[in-house]
Amino acid sequence: MPWTIHKLAERLGLEYRGDGTCALARAASLESAGPDALTFFVPGTAVERLAATRAGAVIVCADDVEAAPCVSIVSDEPYLHFARASQLLHPLPAVEPGIATGATVAPDAFVDEQAHVATGAIVETGARIEGGAMIGPACVIGSNVRIGPDTRIGARTVVGDRCILGARCIIQPGAVIGSDGFGFARDGEAWVRIPQIGRVVIGDDVAIGANTTIDRGTSDDTVIANGVILDNQIQIAHNVRIGAGTAIAGCVGVAGSAVIGARCTIGGAAGILGHLEIVDDVHITARSMVRNSITRAGTWSSGVPLEPHREWRRNAARFHQLDRLARRVNALEKDSSAHKSGGIRRE
Amino acid sequence: MPWTIHKLAERLGLEYRGDGTCALARAASLESAGPDALTFFVPGTAVERLAATRAGAVIVCADDVEAAPCVSIVSDEPYLHFARASQLLHPLPAVEPGIATGATVAPDAFVDEQAHVATGAIVETGARIEGGAMIGPACVIGSNVRIGPDTRIGARTVVGDRCILGARCIIQPGAVIGSDGFGFARDGEAWVRIPQIGRVVIGDDVAIGANTTIDRGTSDDTVIANGVILDNQIQIAHNVRIGAGTAIAGCVGVAGSAVIGARCTIGGAAGILGHLEIVDDVHITARSMVRNSITRAGTWSSGVPLEPHREWRRNAARFHQLDRLARRVNALEKDSSAHKSGGIRRE
Amino acid sequence: MPWTIHKLAERLGLEYRGDGTCALARAASLESAGPDALTFFVPGTAVERLAATRAGAVIVCADDVEAAPCVSIVSDEPYLHFARASQLLHPLPAVEPGIATGATVAPDAFVDEQAHVATGAIVETGARIEGGAMIGPACVIGSNVRIGPDTRIGARTVVGDRCILGARCIIQPGAVIGSDGFGFARDGEAWVRIPQIGRVVIGDDVAIGANTTIDRGTSDDTVIANGVILDNQIQIAHNVRIGAGTAIAGCVGVAGSAVIGARCTIGGAAGILGHLEIVDDVHITARSMVRNSITRAGTWSSGVPLEPHREWRRNAARFHQLDRLARRVNALEKDSSAHKSGGIRRE
Repeated sequence: MPWTIHKLAERLGLEYRGDGTCALARAASLESAGPDALTFFVPGTAVERLAATRAGAVIVCADDVEAAPCVSIVSDEPYLHFARASQLLHPLPAVEPGIATGATVAPDAFVDEQAHVATGAIVETGARIEGGAMIGPACVIGSNVRIGPDTRIGARTVVGDRCILGARCIIQPGAVIGSDGFGFARDGEAWVRIPQIGRVVIGDDVAIGANTTIDRGTSDDTVIANGVILDNQIQIAHNVRIGAGTAIAGCVGVAGSAVIGARCTIGGAAGILGHLEIVDDVHITARSMVRNSITRAGTWSSGVPLEPHREWRRNAARFHQLDRLARRVNALEKDSSAHKSGGIRRE
Repeated sequence: MPWTIHKLAERLGLEYRGDGTCALARAASLESAGPDALTFFVPGTAVERLAATRAGAVIVCADDVEAAPCVSIVSDEPYLHFARASQLLHPLPAVEPGIATGATVAPDAFVDEQAHVATGAIVETGARIEGGAMIGPACVIGSNVRIGPDTRIGARTVVGDRCILGARCIIQPGAVIGSDGFGFARDGEAWVRIPQIGRVVIGDDVAIGANTTIDRGTSDDTVIANGVILDNQIQIAHNVRIGAGTAIAGCVGVAGSAVIGARCTIGGAAGILGHLEIVDDVHITARSMVRNSITRAGTWSSGVPLEPHREWRRNAARFHQLDRLARRVNALEKDSSAHKSGGIRRE
Repeated sequence: MPWTIHKLAERLGLEYRGDGTCALARAASLESAGPDALTFFVPGTAVERLAATRAGAVIVCADDVEAAPCVSIVSDEPYLHFARASQLLHPLPAVEPGIATGATVAPDAFVDEQAHVATGAIVETGARIEGGAMIGPACVIGSNVRIGPDTRIGARTVVGDRCILGARCIIQPGAVIGSDGFGFARDGEAWVRIPQIGRVVIGDDVAIGANTTIDRGTSDDTVIANGVILDNQIQIAHNVRIGAGTAIAGCVGVAGSAVIGARCTIGGAAGILGHLEIVDDVHITARSMVRNSITRAGTWSSGVPLEPHREWRRNAARFHQLDRLARRVNALEKDSSAHKSGGIRRE
């Protein structure tokens, strides 16, 4: 279903400059877009890239319209409107209702007539799959799980017993939702397992990345609020709570019972220790380590910048002396001020 | 099977204060426990939380009994006894003996009559599954693997050829045990693969987290001793050896041929380089980086604390100058002491 | 098929010293090798280890021949020749042509007669599996995927629609190739998904580790060039390009649109931010964080070394004061030089 520029702009509620009758078949980057493609330009970036595009149409800010060599669709938020346009040009594949041959669905599980269960998927006793939901190939949907309407579960995902996913979630392949958390009490040289009997409760419009793991709560639930987006290879431990609209990039680890507020962004490979609280609207840069609660919105960082290995070795070795260095500077300052006052007396 | 407080305390070998006839149905946190729930209180934490609980019974230290608003079960180690009580209240589901329809078991594999192989699981030639073991849905158990008695393998776990798991292990979904290690020799611009022909040998009472990966040894084995507990998303490289009772938190990476002692604890997302040795009873805090052998028990750390991004940028930039800064302080100290002695001479 | 030392050395194009008629059955480490095993010795390491080996033959540098207690195969690059010899002693298992019972292959998918599709594997519509390829148990091969000749896909791997793998690749279990990238545009409190319509295009002779994830490109492709080797639990985000012969160790995260050159090595758990470029022949040490483009070949590092926790706490606390400390040293230096010139004037 091709979209003319005119129709697309109309749907987005945006004005355009140029010939609106051209058809767009796909979304693409500035560099790879051809005449059948829509692209976008981030204001403030190198305008030569815009000037050189071969796209059929570009979503741009008003200020950049002049520089565009093709039809311009004018937006205050080009990236957001590109996202919306891209969804129109590339809609999700339709869900084919029905249970595939080779899927195994427990007799007392409920699968809505408008849901799809793919080959090799296993849906266990008492589970409930709502209309428009899609259970990918080789998934394991545990007993009494609930999968909300229009939620799509990628291949080979595991959803453990009793966990709940809301509507319109998209789960990438290989995720594990509802594994047992890491709860053990020390008993001399041994560890005694603490049964993990809570659930994972996931809201609506949540995205979860490939091979991401989310542990069930110990006795309460692990809770992922509406609109949270999680990238690949993230580890969310038991009893964690993540507020609405928070985005977490790949490889982040969140330890047990941490509470993360709404609208936060957590950069890739950051680490968040357990039993702490992060308020709303906190931004953690990539690879930072959060050891304590954060009670104030804003951007927080830790880490040490990259440098040539030889220089790094020298500087890193000095880190061990940092406290002593600071004390030596204290001493020098005392000396210096003693000298100054001494000097004054001498005059 | 409900437990009365009396019966539970008796089984734990503990005294209690109050009415022992009440039945307990579940374990819960202080905050969420209702009258049918057992909870626990960590000595030294905020006693108001204890005072406010609606639990039916609480495991507490003797000193905190007065503050408990419900029946108290008195313990020197409340968390440990809570773990034990929790296992009594929430026993693992019974293993239903038999091979499910939809499982594929090689004709010459041995599956004990008291073991369970779930739907979609594949058990390859020569594998041996002992009594009480449970192979979860969609697992792949390679040829000549041995799974010890009462070991439970979560959904979609892969155990590679010839690997060995002991008794009473619990493996969370998505783990990969026995992948080929990362062994390559450089040949100009190419890499020549070194066949990985060792095994993974796992002891008894080992826990392994979701999507954790353990590589087989190159020619010797990768060895995980009895009672080791591993959290989610951990990477254990080839030839690693981990001593009994060591606990490793989520997202840790252990590089090839590292040897970790017994009773160690490794915090989340820590990194351990290869070909080094860590003695027994070492504790590594979260996100630390171990580059060299540790020959002394105790707690070790690395990393840099979080701060507001703006301040971090300034401080991090100075890290590059740390060696020079230290040399400058050296010079100032020399000057200062030269001045002092000079000053003395001047007087 | 046993190899005599003579035959093996001949095939490697190397000389040997001693009795070449002995048969070798396996490759092993210096310590574990018995009389039927080949081992190797890294020049410059502890020669006692060589002297103590019970191996039947050892690959050594000419300088170490005297120290070898067994037959010596002489090489300038013992590790490389050990890798080659090890492949001869332990060839990959033969691929048994055919589609196993319990595999599901779409009617219009092409599976070469010399390819193998294992039990529980799913091959979707339009996919193409070339000769000598092996699709492991419980894999999901998406629609229109192409798997090149002699490529081996480990158990439970997912390859998403339209992705392409070249020849002779080896993929460990649990990898996800072609998940949707983490592309979202902010819309107030919500996130708007950007369809990910690119592919993952993987060259020849690529190795991919267990549970590693590689996202498809947004509109262009994610590209892994020939001869790249990736360890376990790596996350490669959308639109990333990795040059030929680059090696990446476990737990590394590479953010979106990063471009990594050829022949680079990236140490374990390093992090590479998005939209940056790393030139050829760059080496990043383990756990370093790359925030900016690297335009110069060489070895780069970041991080802070491990120390006892008590000392670390003191030093880490001082990191917050580093910028101030540097300014204080500046002031002391000014003072000191003012004093010196003052002193001169006073004289």
